[in-house]
Amino acid sequence: MPLTSATRSNPAPLEFSSVFADLAPHVAGLNACLRDQVAQFEPEIREMADYCIDTSGKRIRPALVFLSGWRDDTVNPDLVRVAAVIELVHLATLVHDDIMDGADIRRGRESATRSYGPEAAVLLGDALFAHALHLAAQFPTTMVCSAVAESTRRVCAGEIIQTLRRGTTRISRSDYQRVIDLKTAELFRVSCHLGSHLAGFSPEFVSAATTYGRQLGIAYQIFDDLADFFGQESKIGKTLGTDLGSGKLTLPLMELVKASPEGEKAAILAEITGDSIPQPDLRVAQMRDLGVFGRVETALESELARGEKALEPHENRPPTSRLLSLSAILRDQIASLRPQ
Amino acid sequence: MPLTSATRSNPAPLEFSSVFADLAPHVAGLNACLRDQVAQFEPEIREMADYCIDTSGKRIRPALVFLSGWRDDTVNPDLVRVAAVIELVHLATLVHDDIMDGADIRRGRESATRSYGPEAAVLLGDALFAHALHLAAQFPTTMVCSAVAESTRRVCAGEIIQTLRRGTTRISRSDYQRVIDLKTAELFRVSCHLGSHLAGFSPEFVSAATTYGRQLGIAYQIFDDLADFFGQESKIGKTLGTDLGSGKLTLPLMELVKASPEGEKAAILAEITGDSIPQPDLRVAQMRDLGVFGRVETALESELARGEKALEPHENRPPTSRLLSLSAILRDQIASLRPQ
Repeated sequence: MPLTSATRSNPAPLEFSSVFADLAPHVAGLNACLRDQVAQFEPEIREMADYCIDTSGKRIRPALVFLSGWRDDTVNPDLVRVAAVIELVHLATLVHDDIMDGADIRRGRESATRSYGPEAAVLLGDALFAHALHLAAQFPTTMVCSAVAESTRRVCAGEIIQTLRRGTTRISRSDYQRVIDLKTAELFRVSCHLGSHLAGFSPEFVSAATTYGRQLGIAYQIFDDLADFFGQESKIGKTLGTDLGSGKLTLPLMELVKASPEGEKAAILAEITGDSIPQPDLRVAQMRDLGVFGRVETALESELARGEKALEPHENRPPTSRLLSLSAILRDQIASLRPQ
Repeated sequence: MPLTSATRSNPAPLEFSSVFADLAPHVAGLNACLRDQVAQFEPEIREMADYCIDTSGKRIRPALVFLSGWRDDTVNPDLVRVAAVIELVHLATLVHDDIMDGADIRRGRESATRSYGPEAAVLLGDALFAHALHLAAQFPTTMVCSAVAESTRRVCAGEIIQTLRRGTTRISRSDYQRVIDLKTAELFRVSCHLGSHLAGFSPEFVSAATTYGRQLGIAYQIFDDLADFFGQESKIGKTLGTDLGSGKLTLPLMELVKASPEGEKAAILAEITGDSIPQPDLRVAQMRDLGVFGRVETALESELARGEKALEPHENRPPTSRLLSLSAILRDQIASLRPQ
């Protein structure tokens, strides 16, 4: 199957952390910690590692760590460290994603694979990941290492399943759900889990925050899949309409196929399998006409609601209102995509 | 720079474990442990993971774990587990190496990158590595996680440096030494370190075994670089003569350049930079005539001797004679390469 030439650039669709002025010292702590980590790399590869940790990223996962472990505005070094671990894992996956997507641009500049070549980029991703686990091993117990390593394996499994399914059309709703749960929701989930746990919250709250993180991650990925069709590139800041061309059967496409007459179903499926030329503009117009946006939005809303429900018994905990603001931001972003 | 089309196939040059009948139950324990680990992978990727852990490998690093932690023939579950961790890391690096080398064959059958495509293979390597660290986190302390994660970063750093240097000729003997120390000796070193430490030996012995492991790894890589020129494919079991063609300035080539007259030096360097067609047969003949084999063998011997010297004060410890047999096997293998 062909590699897509999708390019991604900044700014990112969701600027979670920018709306939390409270988080500024935490994010500053995170960036300092990431720089310290790079200084521990072998001198010959330090510059390359530094290139990858650039500070223009969204830092969504670190924000989840800090918010789910929020007690007051004190910067907790354990949370900074675990946020750095999870961000390094995430950055490693981005380096490897860009190789696979043949992406030349990442956050408005050359991707690592473009700058250093795919061979070095494979190894650089590996080195970032290895260092993340080395940092995780600085906690007094193996708990962080174990959780982060298992989550990483699950993220990779999700990406592998998605890769192997490209261009195939026999994908059920539950297959889709499983992939986004693994590839996206897993790191959101573990961020909330470790943030709330390391901040010393009760097991009940840790469990609720973990559920919220997972559901937010699922909703975020559905939003991302919706934006691929309904977003404006100028607003979203990345090339859109690439899922159809790269044979990825996401929820909006599934809903379009379901709502289309028989002859049209076959035509859409042929675009996914690569048997005919993708027509993203036509498909977006059809999605608009057939109410696909609304159905996907409903699915997304129900995922988000499930996460919010988990937090209900904990409304007076300091993290709760902060976590819930993330739902509000996501809802605003979805509203901005809604066809008029 | 072009990807080489080097292929590698079994059998491997050094059958360390096959000569240690004593190790059979340990290796059986290792293989059972690896199968258990694969069972923990997500069902969709289990078959792919299983494909990678096949039992035809040399298991050199596990052998180092078992031998450096040898007390009697009892199988120590801690050693089995750490051997599995290190072998999983090694298998992950092989999966990624094959992508970068464009290698179609690994151990006599299709490589993972050939079977599943390079995108899935990048992720599969990541998943294997992530699982290795998850398994490492099952020890009571973070010590194994920390050591293995740091070693992995160092292995990757070595491979990155080597990759970035391909086709360049300004490489000093100490640059070469640093790359082989990182890319090969590091996992040998950590195998001996963790094996002897987990078996409860004294810090003095752990330190000696660790030094031995590192020196054996350096010597092994020099042997491998020598075999690329002097080996017979039927004996060594992999395609040889590829270092010159892929622009890798290894010790035998360095010694050949040093020993050659000025005009010839330039011709050899042009083959390394890709400015002229590589002539491996001519270069091997020149190495033979100019005594390059002997000089490289002397360098290798001095590395090995340094490792053996570290073990001298510990001659009565059960692992010592077993570790020293590995030097003897390596010496036999080198002797079999020596030009008549």
